[in-house]
Amino acid sequence: MRVTPELAADLAALLGDRFTTAPAELVAHEGSESHFDPTPPEAVAYPISTEETAAIMAACHRHRCPVVAWGAGTSLEAQALAVKGGLCVDFARMNAVIEVNAADMDARVGPGLTREALNDYLRDQGLFFPVDPGANASLGGMASTRASGTTTVRYGTMADNVLGLTVVLADGRVIRTGGRARKSATGYDLTHLFVGAEGTLGLMTELTLRLHGLPQSIATAVCAFDTMTGCVDTVIETVQSGIPMARIEFVDAVTAAIVNRMDGAGLTEAPHLLVEFHGSDAAVAEDIATFGDIARAHGASQFDWASRTEDRNRLWRIRHRAYWSCLASRPGARAIVTDACVPISRLAEAVAETQADISASGLVAPILGHVGDGNFHAILMIDPASASERAVAAGLAKRISDRALALGGTISGEHGVGLGKIGMMRAEHGEAVAVMRAIKEALDPLDLLNPGKTIP
Amino acid sequence: MRVTPELAADLAALLGDRFTTAPAELVAHEGSESHFDPTPPEAVAYPISTEETAAIMAACHRHRCPVVAWGAGTSLEAQALAVKGGLCVDFARMNAVIEVNAADMDARVGPGLTREALNDYLRDQGLFFPVDPGANASLGGMASTRASGTTTVRYGTMADNVLGLTVVLADGRVIRTGGRARKSATGYDLTHLFVGAEGTLGLMTELTLRLHGLPQSIATAVCAFDTMTGCVDTVIETVQSGIPMARIEFVDAVTAAIVNRMDGAGLTEAPHLLVEFHGSDAAVAEDIATFGDIARAHGASQFDWASRTEDRNRLWRIRHRAYWSCLASRPGARAIVTDACVPISRLAEAVAETQADISASGLVAPILGHVGDGNFHAILMIDPASASERAVAAGLAKRISDRALALGGTISGEHGVGLGKIGMMRAEHGEAVAVMRAIKEALDPLDLLNPGKTIP
Repeated sequence: MRVTPELAADLAALLGDRFTTAPAELVAHEGSESHFDPTPPEAVAYPISTEETAAIMAACHRHRCPVVAWGAGTSLEAQALAVKGGLCVDFARMNAVIEVNAADMDARVGPGLTREALNDYLRDQGLFFPVDPGANASLGGMASTRASGTTTVRYGTMADNVLGLTVVLADGRVIRTGGRARKSATGYDLTHLFVGAEGTLGLMTELTLRLHGLPQSIATAVCAFDTMTGCVDTVIETVQSGIPMARIEFVDAVTAAIVNRMDGAGLTEAPHLLVEFHGSDAAVAEDIATFGDIARAHGASQFDWASRTEDRNRLWRIRHRAYWSCLASRPGARAIVTDACVPISRLAEAVAETQADISASGLVAPILGHVGDGNFHAILMIDPASASERAVAAGLAKRISDRALALGGTISGEHGVGLGKIGMMRAEHGEAVAVMRAIKEALDPLDLLNPGKTIP
Repeated sequence: MRVTPELAADLAALLGDRFTTAPAELVAHEGSESHFDPTPPEAVAYPISTEETAAIMAACHRHRCPVVAWGAGTSLEAQALAVKGGLCVDFARMNAVIEVNAADMDARVGPGLTREALNDYLRDQGLFFPVDPGANASLGGMASTRASGTTTVRYGTMADNVLGLTVVLADGRVIRTGGRARKSATGYDLTHLFVGAEGTLGLMTELTLRLHGLPQSIATAVCAFDTMTGCVDTVIETVQSGIPMARIEFVDAVTAAIVNRMDGAGLTEAPHLLVEFHGSDAAVAEDIATFGDIARAHGASQFDWASRTEDRNRLWRIRHRAYWSCLASRPGARAIVTDACVPISRLAEAVAETQADISASGLVAPILGHVGDGNFHAILMIDPASASERAVAAGLAKRISDRALALGGTISGEHGVGLGKIGMMRAEHGEAVAVMRAIKEALDPLDLLNPGKTIP
């Protein structure tokens, strides 16, 4: 027991009924949107300020109690699970839009604010926050896992869109990193160090985010290809032509068949690209024309263009629901979602080898991904009761990661390490893991912050 | 003496005549392009590989000898000066373009390669590396100081354009950070930690850089404004309109007068913007039209548009020679160049207050800067023999930094900390300096890497 009666008394005195050990609260913080076994924390705290979070952390430091941050609970590698027990700090009540600077296109927000809530708030100001992992994740969680999504090819990942942070350290000290200037050359880049650290170095209590102007014009298209290589070559040539794609997503023929069956998508059973352009009316029109020429030269057909909001939403609904359509296509199935990311020039072979590997495995595993980033997901659907299917999927997932490394890529483009990828950190980073470990020990010598995660 | 006879013997055995204590070599590595007093190292080494650099570092670690990396010697805050003695490691012979991947638009290079040499190499491939500090700096030095320049508003700083590194650690171990995938969510972001660390955490021996496609069309313009506020409001509105400026530079009326006198620039003695657009022919034409409308609404006149290479070069020559024109305008003068960077919405007041402060000081100090980033330089020209001018300039520089912090900015947008700004690190970063110090002690416990710099 890490939340001792003494610590519980301290936290109750600090937080009142915002500190709880109620069983329903523990169950609400035990799971994730992935295949890991539930792991409840011993207690849950709901701070409402940086100062309160600092006091919580200082108390846990005195009592040597592990602390895991909780945002929206949507992480895919068990990042928010309290695998060593201790306290879950849920930032749900620190979800304010604290400040928006329209002239500078930045915003200061609480870590518990979700990306959709931020965009709802911004809509009237002609601004938006572009990073969009599938789930309606919290911005603190997205920063902590270095999340990205369909718009990364144009707008970058969380690493590119977090300008500064307020962070509570392992002993309760508070620091500020980065700032509102668009660049700085002073000192170590602590903002990028905490972004992606999965809560193992500190607790984010405020984020300063970069915003972007809503484009004058948006056009979306879907088109079919004879081959997956045609898709990838189209992407490479489009990037090289300097056309700023806002989104370019790949779905394979297996995915197309499933979304047809489950969602009435009406696609050919072939590889597809979904692409989107943002800009002025004239620029988007030119981008559409150039992209169409490039894609047709690589075997594209059956273009379906949409510029009205409802038509665009219809196309993107296919993509956004694909994961759930896949799961629903096999009732009772759970999924292991792989996350390889390779240099784009190696993407065609990475996907082709993965498809051959899947075929040989006997599993059904649709592939889709953020092809503009070289990032693809295989959704390995398994019967959770079948030990053999679990073993086959684990082998496939391992080979997909190995293949990504062999091709000069990474084992995770956007889902992170958490528990699921910790065993492969040395394979990807080699001796650099020792440097990460040295930093962890320097900033959290008692190993209180999200212990058991990220750094082996 | 830190390079003991024993260490010298070890290094001579390792490097032959690429290890030297010749006086001319020491003098060649004692200075910088700024106002700091010359500080020669005790010896100079010229490694030719990562392995050799690791062996040099291991020897210096055994003998407890400080090591300072040297690129092109163009840093502005004395980053490359051996202020604690020891060995200067000059990467001049590690200047290869090791690999270019055109399909992925990345390149692997040695740290001693200069940005101009890389761009000469890339020209035939339709690619370029955009980051352009004024000097023809080495890419290792640019990464180490987190350099930026006129194209940052579109293409980012070194932090945005370094994908991965090979780094020799303080004890001679070698690590690789980042990689060729366009994104990764695995582990601490060591690439961004070493970028901007000014050689205090490790020696970069290879860099993987992000390249960009040469645009189909480039158009440059200069225009005059009645007020500096007009310049800044033009920039804000252009950014918000989603127009992707490739460059947008500000020169004040004092600068205009000097470049007229020294360089025959033929400008009105008023604030000016120099702007550049990159894109397709149609996109650039549209950007020109929209920008012109916005600028005229804020009082711009006397537009001079150029799209032919020689005409563009004529306009940019004015900007690129401005620093030297200023220095030449007062024979014998030296310059302290300030580097404040603020949120763009605060730039007009930051510049106006600085101009008033300069007027009251009696110094001549032209102001120019990267207005799209909120970054501006005051060139404080002083007679180096005049103690009173030095004191007045030091006071001005300090107030410019204080003002930047008060406006939510940073004391250095792009020149870095080195020796010159180390005394203000706590004012900018507060308790976060303790975290930087903890990281420094974890990675370089003997304080061998560029001691005396960056982190107080």
